[in-house]
Amino acid sequence: MDTFAIEILATTDDPLDELNAHLSLRADATFTHRVIPTFRPDAYVNAHAVDFAGNVERLIALAGEGRQGYDGYLTAMRSRRQHFINAGAVSADHGVRTPLSLKLDPMEAARLFDHVRRGECSEKERDAFEAHMLYEMARMSVEDGLVMTVHPGSLRNYHPDAFARFGPDTGHDIPLAVEFTSSLRPLLADFGTAPGFHLVLFTLDETTFSRELAPLAGFYPSVYLGSPWWFLDAPEAMLRFRAAVTETTGFSRYGGFVDDTRAFCSIPARHNVARRVEASFLARMVVEHRISIPRAREVIVELIVEAPRRAFKL
Amino acid sequence: MDTFAIEILATTDDPLDELNAHLSLRADATFTHRVIPTFRPDAYVNAHAVDFAGNVERLIALAGEGRQGYDGYLTAMRSRRQHFINAGAVSADHGVRTPLSLKLDPMEAARLFDHVRRGECSEKERDAFEAHMLYEMARMSVEDGLVMTVHPGSLRNYHPDAFARFGPDTGHDIPLAVEFTSSLRPLLADFGTAPGFHLVLFTLDETTFSRELAPLAGFYPSVYLGSPWWFLDAPEAMLRFRAAVTETTGFSRYGGFVDDTRAFCSIPARHNVARRVEASFLARMVVEHRISIPRAREVIVELIVEAPRRAFKL
Amino acid sequence: MDTFAIEILATTDDPLDELNAHLSLRADATFTHRVIPTFRPDAYVNAHAVDFAGNVERLIALAGEGRQGYDGYLTAMRSRRQHFINAGAVSADHGVRTPLSLKLDPMEAARLFDHVRRGECSEKERDAFEAHMLYEMARMSVEDGLVMTVHPGSLRNYHPDAFARFGPDTGHDIPLAVEFTSSLRPLLADFGTAPGFHLVLFTLDETTFSRELAPLAGFYPSVYLGSPWWFLDAPEAMLRFRAAVTETTGFSRYGGFVDDTRAFCSIPARHNVARRVEASFLARMVVEHRISIPRAREVIVELIVEAPRRAFKL
Repeated sequence: MDTFAIEILATTDDPLDELNAHLSLRADATFTHRVIPTFRPDAYVNAHAVDFAGNVERLIALAGEGRQGYDGYLTAMRSRRQHFINAGAVSADHGVRTPLSLKLDPMEAARLFDHVRRGECSEKERDAFEAHMLYEMARMSVEDGLVMTVHPGSLRNYHPDAFARFGPDTGHDIPLAVEFTSSLRPLLADFGTAPGFHLVLFTLDETTFSRELAPLAGFYPSVYLGSPWWFLDAPEAMLRFRAAVTETTGFSRYGGFVDDTRAFCSIPARHNVARRVEASFLARMVVEHRISIPRAREVIVELIVEAPRRAFKL
Repeated sequence: MDTFAIEILATTDDPLDELNAHLSLRADATFTHRVIPTFRPDAYVNAHAVDFAGNVERLIALAGEGRQGYDGYLTAMRSRRQHFINAGAVSADHGVRTPLSLKLDPMEAARLFDHVRRGECSEKERDAFEAHMLYEMARMSVEDGLVMTVHPGSLRNYHPDAFARFGPDTGHDIPLAVEFTSSLRPLLADFGTAPGFHLVLFTLDETTFSRELAPLAGFYPSVYLGSPWWFLDAPEAMLRFRAAVTETTGFSRYGGFVDDTRAFCSIPARHNVARRVEASFLARMVVEHRISIPRAREVIVELIVEAPRRAFKL
Repeated sequence: MDTFAIEILATTDDPLDELNAHLSLRADATFTHRVIPTFRPDAYVNAHAVDFAGNVERLIALAGEGRQGYDGYLTAMRSRRQHFINAGAVSADHGVRTPLSLKLDPMEAARLFDHVRRGECSEKERDAFEAHMLYEMARMSVEDGLVMTVHPGSLRNYHPDAFARFGPDTGHDIPLAVEFTSSLRPLLADFGTAPGFHLVLFTLDETTFSRELAPLAGFYPSVYLGSPWWFLDAPEAMLRFRAAVTETTGFSRYGGFVDDTRAFCSIPARHNVARRVEASFLARMVVEHRISIPRAREVIVELIVEAPRRAFKL
C-alpha cells in the first residue's frame, strides 16, 4: 500500500461476512491507508444464484431480527448494509444479468419471494423478482447513503465444462447486449433525483455509451458513468469511451477509474494506464484547439482525483 | 435572417395550424427569405399522445369533409397536408417511438382506428395502428410529394416528475436502441422505389449507421441519411457518422445538415460547426491520399449546398 | 491465377454438385494452383429456402444410402461433405439469418424435420429446426474436420420487386442486428473446445466485434474472427474491426482475409487493400510506441500469411 501509494482500496464482500479483517485494520493505528468493504448481495438477490434458497435462509437467520419471509429478508438486508457501513463501506455493488428494474406492490413482492425461494416459479417470475430487488436496493441506497454500482450484461459461467471443473468466476463470462433506457426507468423515476443518491453504471456493451448512459448521466444528477469495465487494460477502448460520452456529459459525470482487479500488483499499472489514456485524450483536445492547456490541467485533476472522490463520497 | 444569411428556415407545425404567420410572410414582398412550415402529425398518429382521441376528433371536424371514422381521418390528413403544401411546406416530419411499419387491410385499419380512438385496445393493437399509420404517411408522401422525415428511438418524457411539473418536450427524452431493417421493410417494399419519394432517416442509435441506414440508402433511391440528430453540436459524433456511412454510400445519399434547433441564434453556429466537421473529414481523406484536393472541393459543396437542396426538393 | 499470384482460391458450391470442374483441375498436372470447393448447405438446412422440400428430397435420393427421413437426411449430408473433402474442400460455409443454435433430442429433431419438410410447421418450429441444424453442422465439422464458417445477420432478398424480377442474391440484402453470445452457447458448450474444431465467425453488425466476438475468440480455442464481411473494400471499417478486437484477442485469433468476391479481377485489389490496412494499423501502433518495428514485421506476416493458413488448415 505504501509502495504503490494507494489511498483507498475497496474489497467486495458477502453480506454475511463479519468483516473481521476490515475491523482489525481499522483498529490498527499503525495502518494509515483506507481499506474498506463493499456490500455485494448478488447471491441473495439473483434468484439464479447457486443455493439461493439456502443463502436467503442464512441471511434471515443471521439478521432478520426474528422476522420471517419477505419482511425478514428486507430487514436482514438493511441490517447487513448497516453492518458494512459501520465497517467503512461506501458502496453496494450489483452484478446483474440485466439492469431491469420493477416496482412491485409489497404484497406481490412477498408472494413472489416465497415462490422464488421454494423454486416454484416461472422464469418470468424469477426475472420480475430480480428486477424488483434492483429497485429495492436503490431504495435502500437512498435511505442509507451507500453508493449503488451496477454491472449488468455479463453472461456468467458461459462454458459448462469449465464451470463444472473450476467453479464460478473463472474467466468464462461473455458479454451480452444491454438495454438501460427502458430497464432503469422505474428505478430512476422514483430515485433518480433523490438527494444524495449516487448510481454508477458500468457496461460491457459499448453501444450504450453514447446512446443511453451519457444521456441518462446528462439528465439525472444521481447517475455517474462507470469506467469502461473489462476494457481497463485497453487504451483504444478507453479512448472510445471518452470520445463517446464527453460531448454529451462533459467531464463532470464520470465515476472515476475503478480498477476492478484481483491482482494487487496490477493496481498501479492499471491506474497508470488510465491516467495516460485520459491525458492522451486531453492532449488531442488541446492539439485540435478544442480546450486550452490550462483547462486540460484542471480537467485531468477532475478526472483522476476529484471524480472518484465525488462519485464514491470518499 | 439577413445577418445570418439564412436562405431557408423550416418550422414544425401542428396539422390543425392555419399557418397564418407563414401566409403573411409569404405575402410580404419585403421579406425575401424562405420560411416554410413542416407537417408534423405526431399527436394525430401516435396513439399514446396526450388526448389522442380529442386530437383526432378535432382533425376530422376541421378537415374530414363531412366523412366520419377512419375514412374522415385519412381524408382530413390528406387535406391538411395540402394546406401545408399551399403554405410552402416541403416535408412531413414523424417523431415515432420505433420505425415499425405495417400494411393493414383498410377494413382492419378502420376497425383498429375505432378501437384506438375509444381507448379500447391492447398495447399490441396500438403499436399495430401506429406502424400502419407510418405506412400510410409514406403513401401520402408518394402521392403529394412531401419529403418524409422520420425521427425514431427517443423515449419521450422519460422522467414522470419533470413531465408533471414542466410538461412534454422539456429535455428528458432518452434514446432507445432502434431497428430499421425489419421495421421499414413493408414501407420500403411498396414505396422504396416510388418516383419522387424521399425518405430521410434520422437516428440517435449510432449502431444503425453502418449496419442498417447506409445499406438501405445504398439500395433505395428514396432513402437519404439524416444528419446525426442530437449530436449536432458534437464534432466527434459527426465524424463517426461520416466515417460509418461514407464507405457504403459515398457522399451522395446525405440529406444535408438539419440544425434541429429551437434557438434562433444557434443556427449559424451549428451550421458553422457542421461545415468545419465535413471539411475536417475531407481534409483527412486528402491527407491520406484517398481523395484529391479538387475532388474535396467538389464534395464539400455537394455535402453543404447540394445535399439539402436535393433531399428536401428546395 | 499466375498473374495475380493466387496460391489458393475457394468457390462455394451446392452440396449436390458433383464438382467435376474441381476434379478436372486437380487432375491437370499443368495447373499448379489450388482451387478448392466449399460445402455450402444453406438451401438444405434453411427451412425458408426456395423449394426446401424438393432440395431435401433430392439430397436424400442422391446420397441417403437408401435411408429415409431424418436419418437419410443426416446420412446424405455426411456423405456429401465427404465428397467435398475428397475434392479438396477445407471448409463448410453457413449463411444463416441468426446464429441461433439448439441441441434437440434426435427423436424431436426427426419429428421437426418431417413437419418442416411437409410445410406443416409454425415459424417457431422452423426456427428451432434451423438452430438445431447449425448445431448438427458443428458436430459434423468436429467429426470430419471441415472448418465451419458462419455468416449470420443478412436479411436476404429484402426488396420483393427486385427478387421477383432478378431472383435471389442480386444485391438487396440488408444487415440485421445479431446476437452471438446466447445464440451460440449450446453449440460452443458441446464443441467449443473440441480438438481440431475451427469456427470462423463473420458479422455485418460491428457492435458484436468488441462485445461478443472478441470475448468468444479469447476464450474458445475453436473460435476465429472472420474478416469484416461487406466492409472488405472499406478501410475505415477494417480499421474499426482491428481496433475493436485486438485489445481482447491479440493478433492470433484472426481467421485471415477472405475476399468474398465474385469478381476475379477484384481479388488482388481487395487483398492489396487488406494488407495496406493491416500495415496502417500496425504503423500506428509503432508510432504510438505500443509495439516495436521488429514486432510489427512479425505481426504483418502473422495476419496476412499465417492467419488464413492456420484458421483454414491450409
